[in-house]
Amino acid sequence: MHTDQVRATLARQHIETPSWAYGNSGTRFKVFAQQGIPRDAYEKVSDAATVHRFTGVAPSVALHVPWDLVDDWGKLRAHAEDEGVSLGAVNPNTFQEDEYRLGSVCNPDPAIRRKALDHLLECVEITQQVGSKHLSLWFADGTNYPGQDSIRERQDRLSEALAATYAAMPEDMTMLVEYKFFEPAFYHTDLPDWGTSLLHCLHLGPQAKVLVDTGHHAPGTNIEMIVTTLLREGRLGGFHFNSRFYADDDLMVGSADPFGLFRIMFELVQSDAVTPDAGVAFMLDQCHNIEAKIPAQIRSVMNVQEATAKALLVDLDALREARASGDVLRANGLLMDAYATDVRPLLAQVREDLGIDPDPLAAYAASGYQQRIESERVGGAAAGWGA
Amino acid sequence: MHTDQVRATLARQHIETPSWAYGNSGTRFKVFAQQGIPRDAYEKVSDAATVHRFTGVAPSVALHVPWDLVDDWGKLRAHAEDEGVSLGAVNPNTFQEDEYRLGSVCNPDPAIRRKALDHLLECVEITQQVGSKHLSLWFADGTNYPGQDSIRERQDRLSEALAATYAAMPEDMTMLVEYKFFEPAFYHTDLPDWGTSLLHCLHLGPQAKVLVDTGHHAPGTNIEMIVTTLLREGRLGGFHFNSRFYADDDLMVGSADPFGLFRIMFELVQSDAVTPDAGVAFMLDQCHNIEAKIPAQIRSVMNVQEATAKALLVDLDALREARASGDVLRANGLLMDAYATDVRPLLAQVREDLGIDPDPLAAYAASGYQQRIESERVGGAAAGWGA
Amino acid sequence: MHTDQVRATLARQHIETPSWAYGNSGTRFKVFAQQGIPRDAYEKVSDAATVHRFTGVAPSVALHVPWDLVDDWGKLRAHAEDEGVSLGAVNPNTFQEDEYRLGSVCNPDPAIRRKALDHLLECVEITQQVGSKHLSLWFADGTNYPGQDSIRERQDRLSEALAATYAAMPEDMTMLVEYKFFEPAFYHTDLPDWGTSLLHCLHLGPQAKVLVDTGHHAPGTNIEMIVTTLLREGRLGGFHFNSRFYADDDLMVGSADPFGLFRIMFELVQSDAVTPDAGVAFMLDQCHNIEAKIPAQIRSVMNVQEATAKALLVDLDALREARASGDVLRANGLLMDAYATDVRPLLAQVREDLGIDPDPLAAYAASGYQQRIESERVGGAAAGWGA
Amino acid sequence: MHTDQVRATLARQHIETPSWAYGNSGTRFKVFAQQGIPRDAYEKVSDAATVHRFTGVAPSVALHVPWDLVDDWGKLRAHAEDEGVSLGAVNPNTFQEDEYRLGSVCNPDPAIRRKALDHLLECVEITQQVGSKHLSLWFADGTNYPGQDSIRERQDRLSEALAATYAAMPEDMTMLVEYKFFEPAFYHTDLPDWGTSLLHCLHLGPQAKVLVDTGHHAPGTNIEMIVTTLLREGRLGGFHFNSRFYADDDLMVGSADPFGLFRIMFELVQSDAVTPDAGVAFMLDQCHNIEAKIPAQIRSVMNVQEATAKALLVDLDALREARASGDVLRANGLLMDAYATDVRPLLAQVREDLGIDPDPLAAYAASGYQQRIESERVGGAAAGWGA
Repeated sequence: MHTDQVRATLARQHIETPSWAYGNSGTRFKVFAQQGIPRDAYEKVSDAATVHRFTGVAPSVALHVPWDLVDDWGKLRAHAEDEGVSLGAVNPNTFQEDEYRLGSVCNPDPAIRRKALDHLLECVEITQQVGSKHLSLWFADGTNYPGQDSIRERQDRLSEALAATYAAMPEDMTMLVEYKFFEPAFYHTDLPDWGTSLLHCLHLGPQAKVLVDTGHHAPGTNIEMIVTTLLREGRLGGFHFNSRFYADDDLMVGSADPFGLFRIMFELVQSDAVTPDAGVAFMLDQCHNIEAKIPAQIRSVMNVQEATAKALLVDLDALREARASGDVLRANGLLMDAYATDVRPLLAQVREDLGIDPDPLAAYAASGYQQRIESERVGGAAAGWGA
Repeated sequence: MHTDQVRATLARQHIETPSWAYGNSGTRFKVFAQQGIPRDAYEKVSDAATVHRFTGVAPSVALHVPWDLVDDWGKLRAHAEDEGVSLGAVNPNTFQEDEYRLGSVCNPDPAIRRKALDHLLECVEITQQVGSKHLSLWFADGTNYPGQDSIRERQDRLSEALAATYAAMPEDMTMLVEYKFFEPAFYHTDLPDWGTSLLHCLHLGPQAKVLVDTGHHAPGTNIEMIVTTLLREGRLGGFHFNSRFYADDDLMVGSADPFGLFRIMFELVQSDAVTPDAGVAFMLDQCHNIEAKIPAQIRSVMNVQEATAKALLVDLDALREARASGDVLRANGLLMDAYATDVRPLLAQVREDLGIDPDPLAAYAASGYQQRIESERVGGAAAGWGA
Repeated sequence: MHTDQVRATLARQHIETPSWAYGNSGTRFKVFAQQGIPRDAYEKVSDAATVHRFTGVAPSVALHVPWDLVDDWGKLRAHAEDEGVSLGAVNPNTFQEDEYRLGSVCNPDPAIRRKALDHLLECVEITQQVGSKHLSLWFADGTNYPGQDSIRERQDRLSEALAATYAAMPEDMTMLVEYKFFEPAFYHTDLPDWGTSLLHCLHLGPQAKVLVDTGHHAPGTNIEMIVTTLLREGRLGGFHFNSRFYADDDLMVGSADPFGLFRIMFELVQSDAVTPDAGVAFMLDQCHNIEAKIPAQIRSVMNVQEATAKALLVDLDALREARASGDVLRANGLLMDAYATDVRPLLAQVREDLGIDPDPLAAYAASGYQQRIESERVGGAAAGWGA
Repeated sequence: MHTDQVRATLARQHIETPSWAYGNSGTRFKVFAQQGIPRDAYEKVSDAATVHRFTGVAPSVALHVPWDLVDDWGKLRAHAEDEGVSLGAVNPNTFQEDEYRLGSVCNPDPAIRRKALDHLLECVEITQQVGSKHLSLWFADGTNYPGQDSIRERQDRLSEALAATYAAMPEDMTMLVEYKFFEPAFYHTDLPDWGTSLLHCLHLGPQAKVLVDTGHHAPGTNIEMIVTTLLREGRLGGFHFNSRFYADDDLMVGSADPFGLFRIMFELVQSDAVTPDAGVAFMLDQCHNIEAKIPAQIRSVMNVQEATAKALLVDLDALREARASGDVLRANGLLMDAYATDVRPLLAQVREDLGIDPDPLAAYAASGYQQRIESERVGGAAAGWGA
């Protein structure tokens, strides 16, 4: 691709940040408190808008219900618009009430399943009210001990809940069905892998697509293979980007596996699925347990951009030729050449094209925003998982 | 299940052994030669028949082409019948010629793809000639280096070959589509997981089903979850049983993970899929690199039987109740009670019901078969991977 | 071993339960509240004593500081004695204050290191006051991002803190140095494996030994190999038993990997290290996120007993012979024969020898203890991680 | 580090290539034959010298005995000198004879242990005759089945063999003790991890050091942590570089995990251990199953150089400051800045400093060497594992 096209493509990228990344988070061992943490959804949206202001490519923010519950969704939407962003994917929560101890939509108790389903249906409503097109489903459902529950009957229950939710969706809404290898369930997870998610999507219909969280796989899994298979099937709904060395570490995307991120992006490039018109949602889903939240989100957006830029620079014509001739070293070399390229100058140009500072982290640091929120956001309960 | 039913069920079990388990095998580091190894398909079939004679539940033997190539398939079939067994799944080989360096049906070179497809079609023929209903496909296809070939185009090529093969199959033949996490491809594998296999099967039609090799998964994968999902979808074609601690170690089934094997069997029990009429093929696929081949096959068959027996002993009524009431410890306890049971006496009875010695290993040792083959099978080339 | 000896050995087994297993626990996603949870260390000790009453082999309880902080350690000790148990290993906590965001004894800030060290020294004191011989150290220290801190300098800091703590210990105290593959640190952990723990122990002196938590290893790690190596070196301090399918799942020991637990026990048997006089501490370290706490501890103790019983039943003479003759199948078969044995009747006898009910779970259920604590323990803050 | 220093350091780097990389290799499924493969040790040395000619930093070649057995080691040494390289580490082979089915130095049979030890002692001799200082030990020893042999007694046997070999070494020889997670042993490996290797080295003496093969770890293992611990202990003997996605894939170093390679190099930089005077041997150990051998070795050497160059470019002063102030994002950012740098121009300069072509792969392709060996090396047996 010519550099001009690369720049134009990068300028059109859309990377959604999650409201929950701006709140406190941690591990089961400890949630470390930070300063300047938002106390409600409005302040989270403001932080997300700040990230957009400094990166130029993060124009929407994902919501988590009930963590982001507000009295008036229209008002939150207006606030977002004032801040220059839109509200994105709506993420229901069916794992943080004591009743969900044995699962939500897969729970053996029909009353609890009903409660969970009602929440899903409520979120279909909210998705419309906030002007979003994405209902993003992740279930913590599973079991901890062999024998604990019927794996098969739980699939039936899951099917039923998904079908009822799907039926309630308007035609322009997409259901994103996420999967996860393990945690918080430690024996079996009801949606453990892309295959199970896809199978449910195929039974549901064309508005159901698979959501790939880059931290939700078994060790060694080739994620770009999954991405390609889903693209080929027309069922890649989007990404929850983050990075991991071990399990679902939820580190900043690109920090643990920059080469892996690049390989995923390269599959998207080859299937022409980098820009928003391809219908693949790029979303971050991360925890900044020990680092500053807003700069970490900025850095993460930049990491996705850099991986994308490198992927766009691969010489596809030469690659096609090398592949056809079976020249393993040359084909691999062409990929690595793009990866070895320093794309930071190119991205500085993209930012100038977008009318923003070429160095987002420095600009943010100089902006005084962090100091302001640290001094202003005093009192109230800092947002976190659960609020 | 009442003990009588358990015994009857166990007596009807059918576990196919693979012809290649009787030949020499090893790792890339060394194939250790053993004594008494068969020199051709006839001798392999005789060994398989011996395993059946001493276990009573291994009445068929899987073939590998061209390792088991004979001039006259009808003659091999007659030999098998004389020995008291039938010929089972036919396994094509598209990985042991220099032309397959970059893959077989996914190779970038159309001529090589054609050659591979021709071999698959030949095997459809052979499957019919040997009186088998199972064409069992495993492809070594994949790449070793990022960029080496187009993952997506390789899927297209794979689709095409599978469709052409499927089209050539008679209506009573089942295509088993195996997948493997890695090896011999070390970057991406064209059929890496059950989801990819299932997706191809869904596109092909009802005669295509997924084959689960218990050693072909990422670390930590919950195999019984996959089994259940495939059963629920009506697409579990069968198993290649073996055991592993690390990768595709191909140890004796049940030797590394007896509890895991039991859990798989328990899912089959719950879906009533243990006996042959359920249409799920139980096949061994193992390497006896350092242990004696025939006793290792006997032991493996026994291990499958023991896991099945334990699974059949789970008190399903009590379990249903414990699950419905959300009693985690009791539900798990009911499963573990069955697992803790010593089923060796029960299986001794099953063997007596079948009219064979209750102690297959001792009976084999006392039979003189091993001494006979060691003294008779002198000269000629011992069978192995590749012959 | 003769059955009499096996029974005698099992009756002398000592399995310590952890005070924190009786409080609420969970994942980062949710801590589900249960009824009857202890509100302080006294009530935890009572629960532990109850487990001992019904199992007969759990006569001590491990403490966690400050979770179990009391005004008067002597009083807690007297309470324990009244209840029929003793206070066991003391576990300092250097991970639950905001200052420990970047580590405790490895923190780049010397003031925070000092604070952590002071806590360790305080715990040396407490260990003596509660009449225990075990200081049990686990550090959450590590980093989340490459480059974040100097791996090497953190080792120097760790060394220094361990040396200062070791110097403060009386001669009859043992320092147990635990390691963990990952979590809560997600890039590097300062004590990630047994090798690092052992190296520090070797530099410290003979009172420092390695603590093996069965959930703290990389996927596929052969734990019994580590156990044997440490035994051979005289540096196996003890175990934190639990069970896992994926990461540090902290499930009931023996529930995910009963065969693995048996293999560990068999190594201990071969090195004559099953009973307390061998100096290897058997401790549970588990989380009962969704199941009832006390019955889960009872079940866990029973699981350790069953694995031990099976290991004691291996015919070592026959095994020695099979190994010497290189008979792989027979040697493996001898091990599997012991594993296949149903040892529940044997353990019922052991319990009768100990003067307790042969069915601990049924006896506990019938005792009314659970109902009593659920009705009595109302008001106050339920104990959990952090209190 | 100033660019001048970086250039000077890179020019002094020493990366040893292995004789066996020039022969055919493969998986247990197939060894694909290539053209122009050496037929003996002399031709392998010529190929290694060619890699040195085009990279300037690969001045020695490791030997494998008996694969590289020659009648006259002095003559091979002279040939190497003529070609401009020296003979490097000597690697004994104790895994490719039928007698080693149950192990070599750990075998239960003392006669086989003696045979293996004699081979080790022979290799101590050969190491001296070829003018090398490194005896490089890797054992395939282990077991496939639980119970098969005594893990502990095998450690005793291993100890004994290592001690006898160590005792035979002259004072200026270093014993490198390699470890491997698994393969070809599939239950337990006698030297499975760095901790076991180190423990043996500590018992042997200062001339014994640990050899880190980058493909020999459990999934997720932080290799740079191991490297740092061994450096801190003064026991890092060297590396066998290669790359992997799954197991011991033996891909070209830096092809699967360029960021991981960079992180290892960065630890070496921080401990000042990049150049040969630090006493850490940099060796490649790879299999080029499907790609051309010599260009793959050249590429691998270049990959090590690029990772080293990036590591040398990290701003250590700024990093020290960021770390001291606990600025996680800045510390990580400084590392990533160096990693993002395109070091290919810098390495082109280094090559010009060394008087060689700045583009080694193009220069090799243009040299006609490949065509020459393909036409000349006809007849005879192509070298491979086993010859």
